[in-house]
This record gives sequence, C-alpha cells and structure tokens, in this order.
Amino acid sequence: MAKLDQLAAGNALAEAGAFSSEERAAVYRAIETRREVRSQFLPEPLPDDLVQRLLKAAHSATSVGFMQPWNFILVRKPETKARVAEAFARANAEAAAMFEDERQAAYLRLKLEGINQAAALDLHHLRSDPWRQGDPGANPQSEHGRLSTVCAVQNLWLAARAEGVGAGWVSIFHEDEVKAILGVHRNVQIIAWLCVGYIDRLYTEPELALKGWRQRLPLEDLVFEEGWQGNSCPRE
Amino acid sequence: MAKLDQLAAGNALAEAGAFSSEERAAVYRAIETRREVRSQFLPEPLPDDLVQRLLKAAHSATSVGFMQPWNFILVRKPETKARVAEAFARANAEAAAMFEDERQAAYLRLKLEGINQAAALDLHHLRSDPWRQGDPGANPQSEHGRLSTVCAVQNLWLAARAEGVGAGWVSIFHEDEVKAILGVHRNVQIIAWLCVGYIDRLYTEPELALKGWRQRLPLEDLVFEEGWQGNSCPRE
Repeated sequence: MAKLDQLAAGNALAEAGAFSSEERAAVYRAIETRREVRSQFLPEPLPDDLVQRLLKAAHSATSVGFMQPWNFILVRKPETKARVAEAFARANAEAAAMFEDERQAAYLRLKLEGINQAAALDLHHLRSDPWRQGDPGANPQSEHGRLSTVCAVQNLWLAARAEGVGAGWVSIFHEDEVKAILGVHRNVQIIAWLCVGYIDRLYTEPELALKGWRQRLPLEDLVFEEGWQGNSCPRE
Repeated sequence: MAKLDQLAAGNALAEAGAFSSEERAAVYRAIETRREVRSQFLPEPLPDDLVQRLLKAAHSATSVGFMQPWNFILVRKPETKARVAEAFARANAEAAAMFEDERQAAYLRLKLEGINQAAALDLHHLRSDPWRQGDPGANPQSEHGRLSTVCAVQNLWLAARAEGVGAGWVSIFHEDEVKAILGVHRNVQIIAWLCVGYIDRLYTEPELALKGWRQRLPLEDLVFEEGWQGNSCPRE
C-alpha cells in the first residue's frame, strides 16, 4: 500500500515551468496593487459564485501536515457587522490613547475599517480539533498551524484583487468580544476579520504611506546574505 | 499639512476594477498550482534579478500600521544549509517519535525538506525594533505584526510559482538552533525557512494527499454563515 501511494504520487507530477510573461505580469499586478481597503467599497453585494472562488483560493493555501486548520464565517447581516464595528470602536479608542499629541491626531484622522460598508469573512484557526485528527505536538513550532491560516488570508486577498474586490484586514478589536458576537468556541482563534466588497478605485500606494503615517522601507535595507547583518540589528 | 496629506491621498486613487479573464486565470493558476516543494528542485542557481523580484513581492505584503516588520536572509552556502539540515533532522526525529506504528512509518516515508537541494530565504519578524519607530502596544492583537510576515511569505510563494520556482516551508526545527546558526538576534523571531529553487515538475495535488497522509477537506464543511455553526464545532 505504501509503495502504491508512492507510485501514484510519482504519476501525479506534471510539467510546471515558468508562466508566460503575460501570466507572470498578472500575478505581480495582483501582488503589487493589492491594498488594505477601508473606505472605497461599493454597495453591490458580492455574488455567491465569486465568494466561493475567493474561499476556494483561501482553501488552496499550504498547511503544516495538510491539516487545513481553517474555518470561514461569512458575515453579511448589518446588525452583526454593527456589533463588530462597536467592538472595533472601543479597541480603537484604547489604541489612540497610546499615542500622544501630533501622532495621536494623525492616528485619529485615519479610517481603519470598513466594517459597516462591506461583507466580512472571518477566518479562524482551530486550536484543537479532534475530528481533523490533529497531530498534537508533532511539530516543535506548533504555531505553524496558525500561520497556515494567514497564508489562506493572503491567497484570498490576491484572488479578490483580481476579481475587482477590495479587502481590509481589521485587526483592532479584542478577540473575545468578536468571538462572543459570533458564538465562536473558546478552542478556536480568530485570525482575521476581512472586510470584502467591490471596489472601482484603489490607492496607488499603501494608504498609510500616502497619508504620511509611515513610508515604505528600502528593500535593500531589509535583505541580508548568509546571516544576520548590518546596522539594522536590534540593539537594547 | 494634515489637509495636504489627505488631498494628496485623494489624488492617488486610481481605477481598479476586475482583471481581464486571462489575468484572473493566471492569478488563480498561481494560487491553485502552488505546492509545498521538497524534492523536485533543479540544480541551477536562481539569478539575482529573479530573487529581487521575489523579495519585492514579499515586501508588497500588508502590515499593521505599515510597519513592514520583516527581514530576509538569503542563504546559499552549502555549509550553512548543511547545519540547518542537521537541525531539521534532529527535530524531525523527535516529531516522528510522537507517532506510533503505521502512522510513524508513513511519517518516516515522507520527505519534508529540500534544505540541501535549494537556496533558502529565511524570513524574520522583528519583535522589537526601535528604529522602525514601532507603535508598541498600540494594537490589542500585537501578534498581527508577526502575521504580516506570513502574508509576505505567501506573496513570495505565489510569485515564485509564476517564475517557475518552487518553494517549501520548512517548519520542523527548533528556532533557537537556527537562530544560532545564522547569528539572529534574540529579539527577532524566525517566521519561515523557505527552500527555493527552479523546478520543472510539480505535483498535481498536495503531496501529502497524494501520498495518503491526509486528504483535502470539503470546502463546504468549513464555511459557516453569520456565526459559528454546525457539527464541526470543537467539543471537549
């Protein structure tokens, strides 16, 4: 049986070279023009087949041991979104209080979510999932299951860009509050609340750069060869 | 000044509808044919311009507060890779010992890394980085900085697929051992060790499914509407 598995796997290798230059350009276009969308959502609802394509893209992500440790909740009801928006507003006020003076004023000018303007996809990681026959502890870096779910997020985001759909990752809330709103079990962790909706305009650069919050770092400052190097090593 | 920022940002909105059907197909092709590559690497080294395109794709990921909390180490020296491969082998033996009988035999038949066969990109998250002017504690879910780095991983992986480059995420090692090999500062966390190299063949389905380790879960079992639902809720 083991030999048969290996044989079947060997037959399942297909040609896989580089994409055509047009295809490659499309992939880079999705990657480079993907934005964090907070306020350009159009009111039209997303058709079900499009939502399914986005979810399938997410479900195509890698996962440690092929555990596929994710679940997705589609949230479209205005009352649910309004409750999550309130949870955001509370956490955002706490976050703003951590800045001072000019920086606080700048923070408060930013619009950081489009919860009430868009549908939402709430992505979860199952911390403990008996029926997926987890391999508890089999991996010394057990957080990798959780990281897999983030790969699903990014797949979905890039697929959305290609579909003319914007997405914004809302990260400012207390997880327990949103879990209570959605009835999410305590063994399950929320990884991302993504606002998703049609868009027809996008910022040409990340919004936080355009609005003066922080600029893009030069890539060459972030790349080292063979080992940790350079004067950007954290000091204490 | 604040008003000027907002004005500049408003001018920086560009048309952004859906991609053409060919472009969309290319994006989905990258997402759906991306694989965890462990053993089909070709010996040709990756040209520098290609590596730069991959790194730029990674650097295009989202990040909380546009912190860009990532660094990249390129590892090409055989001796460095051999030391990391040894660290993997030790951790892998520990992982195998957690399985029993048939499952352990199945685990041991799997090849889980291509460290010595490929170049590597080691992606890091800076836990504490004074010169990037972090916003310490500004976010109640502070782990989001770390998750941003995983978005960078997935961008890089999809760009690699389009370039005819395979990537495999090696997650089985003790972080401290690999940090010691690369001289990585203790305030910095390793997020991913990615083996990257040219490929000309790829599995048509995830290798772990083809080899009988675990099958793909039906997407419909993973999607809920409006709140946590169904009998796949974790029970104790």
